Amino acid sequence: MARAIQLSVDNVRMGGGPFGAVVVKDGSIIGEGANQVSTLNDPTAHAEMLAIRRACLKLGAFDLEGCEIYSSCEPCPMCLGAIYWARLSCVYFANTAADAAAIGFDDVFIYRELEQPFERRKIPMVQIMRDQAAEGFRAWKDKPDKVSY
Amino acid sequence: MARAIQLSVDNVRMGGGPFGAVVVKDGSIIGEGANQVSTLNDPTAHAEMLAIRRACLKLGAFDLEGCEIYSSCEPCPMCLGAIYWARLSCVYFANTAADAAAIGFDDVFIYRELEQPFERRKIPMVQIMRDQAAEGFRAWKDKPDKVSY
Repeated sequence: MARAIQLSVDNVRMGGGPFGAVVVKDGSIIGEGANQVSTLNDPTAHAEMLAIRRACLKLGAFDLEGCEIYSSCEPCPMCLGAIYWARLSCVYFANTAADAAAIGFDDVFIYRELEQPFERRKIPMVQIMRDQAAEGFRAWKDKPDKVSY
Repeated sequence: MARAIQLSVDNVRMGGGPFGAVVVKDGSIIGEGANQVSTLNDPTAHAEMLAIRRACLKLGAFDLEGCEIYSSCEPCPMCLGAIYWARLSCVYFANTAADAAAIGFDDVFIYRELEQPFERRKIPMVQIMRDQAAEGFRAWKDKPDKVSY
């Protein structure tokens, strides 16, 4: 966690947001990241996302089971979703989503939005063409040699 | 949406998951993606994430306000979080998260996990070193020339 916090502090000096994260396997760091949303023009470039992507690249795997992530701040819904998809075994965090909200970040707002039904969300969600889209799911279901994830 | 569905169907043939997405600005596609989790070994490489990242790259911006996203499936929490961070104006989707769960994807499970308090989640979440992490947030708050996002 000391390394994740150091990344968050250094990143502010380098023009990025105050967030750092590291993925650890068997006591060693295998991926780290600091928020690069504004420096890369990539809204998905949160510290945890970059640390996860780099750890997966290092392991040559899309699964980080048995690894832990240390983040200087409680993960936002995007990053927590990525943590579940990556099957990390434990999340350590320092600042809370409420702490992040207090300095102007949308983490708490997005958590609240996800709890709302579609029709009450600030970004409208409209379902169309479900019948046509079933074709992709059928193709997946029927594929004998698929790589599940 | 027809293009997003086509991407989802083609992607199964190419060894990826049955998901496609496009970002549209002023009636034109500016970014598209199909799920590449298993083909790139990247758990964050969902169709929507790739479409958003490519649209941002094209515009040279981390903000997609005024753009819509068409996804062949209801976005998972990770992708919906990214949609909020990118400030997209509308989400069109075809298959539902429940449809995805029915063919073996964790979307509904992850939505349920996010609603749970930390101590009831399948992946443990442990807060440590909050006092030390405040340093990064103070540095951000005190930085006069920061780029907010």
